Amino acid sequence: MSVDINEIKSVMHKMGKKALSASRALAVLKPEEKNTILHRMADAIDKLENEIITANELDLKAGREAGLSSAMLDRLRLDAKRIREMSDGLRSVAKLPDPVGRTLGEVERPNGLKIKKVSVPLGVIGIIYESRPNVTVDSAGLCLKAGNAVILRGGSEAFNSNLILADCMNRAGIEAGLPDGAVQLVKWTDRQAVSVLLKMDEYISLIIPRGGEGLIRTVVEQSTIPVIKHYKGVCHLYADAGCNVEEAVRIIVNAKYQRPSACNALETLLVNSQVAPEFVPLFLKEMREHHIELRGDERSAQWDKEIKPATEDDYYTEYLELVLTVKVVDSLDEAIAHINKYGSHHSDGILTENAAHAEKFMLEIDSATVYQNASTRFTDGGEFGMGAEIGISTDKLHARGPMGLEELTSYKYLVYGNGQVRG
Amino acid sequence: MSVDINEIKSVMHKMGKKALSASRALAVLKPEEKNTILHRMADAIDKLENEIITANELDLKAGREAGLSSAMLDRLRLDAKRIREMSDGLRSVAKLPDPVGRTLGEVERPNGLKIKKVSVPLGVIGIIYESRPNVTVDSAGLCLKAGNAVILRGGSEAFNSNLILADCMNRAGIEAGLPDGAVQLVKWTDRQAVSVLLKMDEYISLIIPRGGEGLIRTVVEQSTIPVIKHYKGVCHLYADAGCNVEEAVRIIVNAKYQRPSACNALETLLVNSQVAPEFVPLFLKEMREHHIELRGDERSAQWDKEIKPATEDDYYTEYLELVLTVKVVDSLDEAIAHINKYGSHHSDGILTENAAHAEKFMLEIDSATVYQNASTRFTDGGEFGMGAEIGISTDKLHARGPMGLEELTSYKYLVYGNGQVRG
Repeated sequence: MSVDINEIKSVMHKMGKKALSASRALAVLKPEEKNTILHRMADAIDKLENEIITANELDLKAGREAGLSSAMLDRLRLDAKRIREMSDGLRSVAKLPDPVGRTLGEVERPNGLKIKKVSVPLGVIGIIYESRPNVTVDSAGLCLKAGNAVILRGGSEAFNSNLILADCMNRAGIEAGLPDGAVQLVKWTDRQAVSVLLKMDEYISLIIPRGGEGLIRTVVEQSTIPVIKHYKGVCHLYADAGCNVEEAVRIIVNAKYQRPSACNALETLLVNSQVAPEFVPLFLKEMREHHIELRGDERSAQWDKEIKPATEDDYYTEYLELVLTVKVVDSLDEAIAHINKYGSHHSDGILTENAAHAEKFMLEIDSATVYQNASTRFTDGGEFGMGAEIGISTDKLHARGPMGLEELTSYKYLVYGNGQVRG
Repeated sequence: MSVDINEIKSVMHKMGKKALSASRALAVLKPEEKNTILHRMADAIDKLENEIITANELDLKAGREAGLSSAMLDRLRLDAKRIREMSDGLRSVAKLPDPVGRTLGEVERPNGLKIKKVSVPLGVIGIIYESRPNVTVDSAGLCLKAGNAVILRGGSEAFNSNLILADCMNRAGIEAGLPDGAVQLVKWTDRQAVSVLLKMDEYISLIIPRGGEGLIRTVVEQSTIPVIKHYKGVCHLYADAGCNVEEAVRIIVNAKYQRPSACNALETLLVNSQVAPEFVPLFLKEMREHHIELRGDERSAQWDKEIKPATEDDYYTEYLELVLTVKVVDSLDEAIAHINKYGSHHSDGILTENAAHAEKFMLEIDSATVYQNASTRFTDGGEFGMGAEIGISTDKLHARGPMGLEELTSYKYLVYGNGQVRG
């Protein structure tokens, strides 16, 4: 289907304008008003279960015809349980503390000016995502709770599912006081509409892309709007000299095995040469039992004949499956240098009993989350106590690590005077 | 002088790599080490006064030959007093609290994980600026204090001045322990080098452009690195019904007249129709005495025959000179709508004795700094008590309003465990 680019531009700009205007109305809603809207949306989703499943079946059918993998079809699939998870997600968000209107700082100046820094919504947020339809509901809920309007652009595979979910939230929300335009879904699923969206910096404050590295790179290349993202999670653990071997192996197994497709799963293990003799037998036994394929540098390849040689590329790779790169290092400094060079600055940890080593590692590793004696799998808004998460950032601006509701706000300064002028 | 783009790319990428490596070394310097470096740099600048003035004279001569305006030549000029201001600036920055290593949050999770959020440097910052050579010293000092490496790209007009200042800071700094590559000046002053710089997102965390709107728009268009900026300052004051007229006029005069070339100077005044009869005579008298040209909407144009009609464009204009747009409004809502539409979200204020009006204005105005009964001229890092300022942001991500040292930092999460794995 070919669409005139001028029509796309015109419709998209109208959406932007409407979203900005809705964001101004959202910014002054009271916490209980936002929570009521969230509950009404949740109830409406539950009530529409059958229709949602029917719409989702259209997407699944098209997906099967287009030859989507079974993993992708599974991501796309909505059933009663998943629909209930979405609506319960909105109810949980309603229960979280309101992130807007927090006093972040306060100072009285010698001239009597009182300056107060308070959290405010960001405004309009654009979410660009791929196949999972639950992102439509989850991100609309989080944006709304933080007082933001949202423009959703989901993948073509999930179009019918996204459409019914957005319509359903809107109908129920607007009846409960949601400003019209606060939740909008882009109807074009081709790249043109995304390109237009990414230049709409007069309306949109933030773009959050959720998907593969290719999608995210395209977004960063084109966007004149700030983007928060993580490209990938090449996470490391370093087993230090003198570490508690049994505990270390248990953490390594968890970080690699518990959910290998997650971005906070382990991809590369560094082992100090001094601990290797004690470490290797237990480690290899657990790897074999968990069917984890190992790729190693020259030294670790000598541990076992089944360890394949690792290439330079392997050290940069996020496998997302039961494959682990292993490398022997001779010092803490070598481990730190390796992680800062090859890592993706997501989640990296040291397994050690040496407090000075731990301190140095945590100071020098340039990653969003740095662990001492725990699994990297804990990098997650829920596990951090944020209650919910819209994504994880490996950027350094605005938000780094798991992003919850507070990370969906900005701030402004309120300055209270009684006639002060500048001298 | 035509330069091969591949040579530019190769040299710039080497600079980026060196800066990233220097930033890692800077991140672990102790506060007193950074302060010693700042003092040595300051002393070196004082000592090199004559040579700096000689280099600056080359720039001034070239500027005169190129026909630069006297205002631009003045901005470019360095004399003993201005050199001393730069070195004293570095000494003041040394005195400020270190922004790195602050604990921003701490939580212990039910599973025993201790999660600590601490401030860390951003990494490498790129500063793109125009004619003022003091930016070279000021921004290097602030970046360094916050533990960041900096790549400076100044304007061609100030090339010789920037070069000697950067060299001088480097020589003195490196002797005192500054990592090589922490302060680098781009030697090419054409646009090509900027285009290369703006794509170096593998090394640089943040770009701060300082200059006119044209420069900043070019930077935003091209950059794949996050940019913090403000395009312009179209600042408003709203004289509410029942305001203290004498105080209001005094604040308006200060906001417009005290330094009209500043971004936080007043550009548009909104006057409530109810207060106009009392307000106008005193207001016009003061405007006349201060030689401020007025441009008005239809209603305010009737106050005085010398008021020129304002065009739609005038409402969007940052005059930066003694010109003020005036408009009569009938309500607080009308004032808020005007400011949110035409303003630049920089600094806007209400002049009122009505507490409910003030509260509504401060909640609904979507600007970085919102004032009640004070001059907009206070939007400034120094006036806010930050001690120093690298710029002002009208963006909503990361930093909004005046940006001091804390705004030049990011954070990371340190997670302390004792064997925790995810269930």
